[in-house]
Amino acid sequence: MAAASGAPLPPLASVALLLLLAASAAARSPMPSPAAFPGAPPRQLQRRRPASSSSSGGRYAVAISAAAAGHDDTAAASAAATKPFTAHYFPQELDHFTFTPNSSAVFYHKYLVNDTFWRRGGAGEAAGPIFVYTGNEGDIEWFATNTGFMFDIAPKFGALLVFIEHRFYGESKPFGNDSYSSAEKLGYLTSTQALADYAILLASLKHNLSAAAAASPVVVFGGSYGGMLASWFRLKYPHVAIGAVASSSPILQFDYITPWSSFYDAVSQDYKSESLNCFSVIKATWDVVEEKGSNDAGLLELSKTFRACKTVQSVYSFRNWLWTAFVYTAMVDYPTPANFLMNLPAYPIKEMCKIIDGFPAGADIVDKAFAAASLYYNYTGDQACFKIEDGGDPHGLSGWGWQACTEMIMPMTISNESMFPPFTFTYDEKSEDCFQSYGVRPRPHWITTEYGGNKIDQVLKRFGSNIIFSNGMRDPWSRGGVLKNISSSITALVTEKGAHHLDFRSANKDDPDWLVEQRRQEVDIIQGWIDQYHEDIAQMSK
Amino acid sequence: MAAASGAPLPPLASVALLLLLAASAAARSPMPSPAAFPGAPPRQLQRRRPASSSSSGGRYAVAISAAAAGHDDTAAASAAATKPFTAHYFPQELDHFTFTPNSSAVFYHKYLVNDTFWRRGGAGEAAGPIFVYTGNEGDIEWFATNTGFMFDIAPKFGALLVFIEHRFYGESKPFGNDSYSSAEKLGYLTSTQALADYAILLASLKHNLSAAAAASPVVVFGGSYGGMLASWFRLKYPHVAIGAVASSSPILQFDYITPWSSFYDAVSQDYKSESLNCFSVIKATWDVVEEKGSNDAGLLELSKTFRACKTVQSVYSFRNWLWTAFVYTAMVDYPTPANFLMNLPAYPIKEMCKIIDGFPAGADIVDKAFAAASLYYNYTGDQACFKIEDGGDPHGLSGWGWQACTEMIMPMTISNESMFPPFTFTYDEKSEDCFQSYGVRPRPHWITTEYGGNKIDQVLKRFGSNIIFSNGMRDPWSRGGVLKNISSSITALVTEKGAHHLDFRSANKDDPDWLVEQRRQEVDIIQGWIDQYHEDIAQMSK
Repeated sequence: MAAASGAPLPPLASVALLLLLAASAAARSPMPSPAAFPGAPPRQLQRRRPASSSSSGGRYAVAISAAAAGHDDTAAASAAATKPFTAHYFPQELDHFTFTPNSSAVFYHKYLVNDTFWRRGGAGEAAGPIFVYTGNEGDIEWFATNTGFMFDIAPKFGALLVFIEHRFYGESKPFGNDSYSSAEKLGYLTSTQALADYAILLASLKHNLSAAAAASPVVVFGGSYGGMLASWFRLKYPHVAIGAVASSSPILQFDYITPWSSFYDAVSQDYKSESLNCFSVIKATWDVVEEKGSNDAGLLELSKTFRACKTVQSVYSFRNWLWTAFVYTAMVDYPTPANFLMNLPAYPIKEMCKIIDGFPAGADIVDKAFAAASLYYNYTGDQACFKIEDGGDPHGLSGWGWQACTEMIMPMTISNESMFPPFTFTYDEKSEDCFQSYGVRPRPHWITTEYGGNKIDQVLKRFGSNIIFSNGMRDPWSRGGVLKNISSSITALVTEKGAHHLDFRSANKDDPDWLVEQRRQEVDIIQGWIDQYHEDIAQMSK
Repeated sequence: MAAASGAPLPPLASVALLLLLAASAAARSPMPSPAAFPGAPPRQLQRRRPASSSSSGGRYAVAISAAAAGHDDTAAASAAATKPFTAHYFPQELDHFTFTPNSSAVFYHKYLVNDTFWRRGGAGEAAGPIFVYTGNEGDIEWFATNTGFMFDIAPKFGALLVFIEHRFYGESKPFGNDSYSSAEKLGYLTSTQALADYAILLASLKHNLSAAAAASPVVVFGGSYGGMLASWFRLKYPHVAIGAVASSSPILQFDYITPWSSFYDAVSQDYKSESLNCFSVIKATWDVVEEKGSNDAGLLELSKTFRACKTVQSVYSFRNWLWTAFVYTAMVDYPTPANFLMNLPAYPIKEMCKIIDGFPAGADIVDKAFAAASLYYNYTGDQACFKIEDGGDPHGLSGWGWQACTEMIMPMTISNESMFPPFTFTYDEKSEDCFQSYGVRPRPHWITTEYGGNKIDQVLKRFGSNIIFSNGMRDPWSRGGVLKNISSSITALVTEKGAHHLDFRSANKDDPDWLVEQRRQEVDIIQGWIDQYHEDIAQMSK
């Protein structure tokens, strides 16, 4: 029996997803942090200035082709043939908020464009809107591929689609492969810099597209952390974006705004709502696993039970493996089969609980938990064994550990009522953990100081406009989201059975009616913003 | 005859006032830039961490007394005895937008407090509002002393008054006396950092004042560049300030929003409106001075005419001296005697033109111009001679030259119709000049990218609220201001006879009715914001 407060939780890498999961608690894991610095000597960012900006005076910087940015042209061409977007690279300055000599070093910032549906305008006709995805913590191609909603609605609007990568992810690493090598470099990985990147890139893009496009309204879209960015972008850059659709964005998961236990309470509730037995089995599993794995013989036995590819050295690896499966499945508890994080059937929690509940009386509790978790890792049945200790990061998200130790401090605790081992959070411990891991101390109130969040209904009741906050209540992140309308144009769309940015996925013939209706409402609201934008212009030019 | 395009203009120091004057053109002066770097070796910012923040985890930083910050306690005590405010020093981090190791270095950020009129609240009574001056490019005590309006209205509101210094000015220099020694240090002098300073300081102040004060609404006030900051603060930090009063803030003087010649056209119009002869004399003076001063004998003669304390070496010094007098007098063309920049009578342009028009027929044109300019420099008659070449900076404003070469790029040209020698502006020349002076290149579109400005009526028609833009049309900066109502709560108050943030000066028994009325409107509007704030709280808590 050891599952007291302070019990180890999943390591940084495995939880540092776009799903933002539990990074606040993760630093206390005894696992070696994969993001710790190898102590490589600092290397200067290459000071490339694009030809267009060295003496351009008042002009805007111009994006360049993949080849000019040093990327493989053949690869780009072949990608274009198979993907519904083309990649571009914009010369972006490193630091928008200082003018130190380093600040103007340029890196190449990736963005994707699809102009298939774009109404280009001209000759008296207005150009179509520009729909922009404000990229979050991963490869932008992954987000573009998983945001089918934008492609689905683009034809109706005649919209140009743009997906902008977040700095320090994917190909947009300011210091190349060295980008994560020190706090000196990672220090430029912040949300404020990312938002300014987006503003600058979009100003340039509109300026350089066409005269008609210069007047095109921009609407930003984002899910999860990308949704936070989208809503903050509308609030901070209303002159760039006329509206924002923020899906599953927990902008209230900071400070003391949302109860700290709400996330894990919500995950637990998802399972309990399917079956009390399912919930109880999972809740009881942690101690059993920990006890079994307390010696080498037990670890060997557990390794067999979990079909580990190689014998696991730490009992915490089993815990993390199960933990990830149960939490991430709650987030992606979609009503149709999907392959966002993993290939999963419709309503995967229901399926997991069916597996647990289907065991005969007296079956081993660990067998039950393993079988349920296997649904997450091996629904397609093609895994011969599991890499239980693998903290791999298939989507290039490893920068999130840094963000979760600097700005994105979302306190989370685990209450006794949840199905997870209890866990406490203190700012002091968080600070120490982050200092150990990255040599940096968090600024725990920075997000609410910079973006607000406290009393958001009061603050935004008479300020700002044109934001949709959509949330699905099956998603545990929904508890940190905006769940009530704030004003006539800052709207909350809540679905009881929705999950993590479900609305942003491609329409599917099996979509339930409530999802079809939610997307229809979003389209209506966006159309309203665009109509009003054009009406205002027409009225003002009279 | 030499006054062609590219003619020299006043040097940086003499024009780098809170009045922002013409710094965009000034870099092309042949005068040595007083802000050029002496090339001192960089010194690290002292990494003092206040006791309260080193292990404070989730707590907010706490301001300290003058003594604890290393300031002279006796001086502070004596100041408190004579000044209507007390000085405080807040531990502020150097860089809010990165997490590089340097970013968390702490400097002591000065602010002034007056709580004489403050209704502290408690026991069911709401605390009074907090009125905050968002300091601009100078010593904060100077702004506090010249913003009598806030003291005048504080009793009615029961307001706490707070005046926050702008980083890199006054006593708030992050690197002490070395702060201006290199771009490495000056790089942290930006408007975005200053706004974040204000947000962090105010969050801490409210947190630490009292429970009642935590709910006090904050209204920000600022004049000139401080007014830009106030309006931008309301737009970027609506969760910190419920409203902003931005007096004479030319937030539209950027990019191509306002015609580049408008500033000098407005100055010229001010003089022309008093007397066509006055305008013509000044217009004709520049060539005559330049021709006379083209050799040593001429310089000696001009030095006598101008009662120079020592013989002037460059003809441009005379030009700058006259230029400053005519431009600054237009800005402070107040309807009552005032001593903001200089001691001046009521309606000083009228008085200057009376002097010029009062000369007998055939009098020397330079004598006329000198006599008029003397009103600006010597209205009290106590100057035995003039320091014509003095680029002195009595208000500690020398950081403005840097700001005008980085973010604050306000293009200005001088048309043939104005009373000044023609002048052109190009972004490329500006960039070269700044690179020569500071080793930095401007980001000419940054301000409009970060804060907007283009099509502001359209952008803010349905976004934001509670901003007063006040302008007096005698002030040439008014042309770059917001002169029309944008929405029902983003209001323009324009007075035909007002001058540079006249409304912020102390009430005076001789104030004209239109000024009394303007201030009354401002008080009414502010009262409306505060009433609505409390009504919203009452309604939401039902």
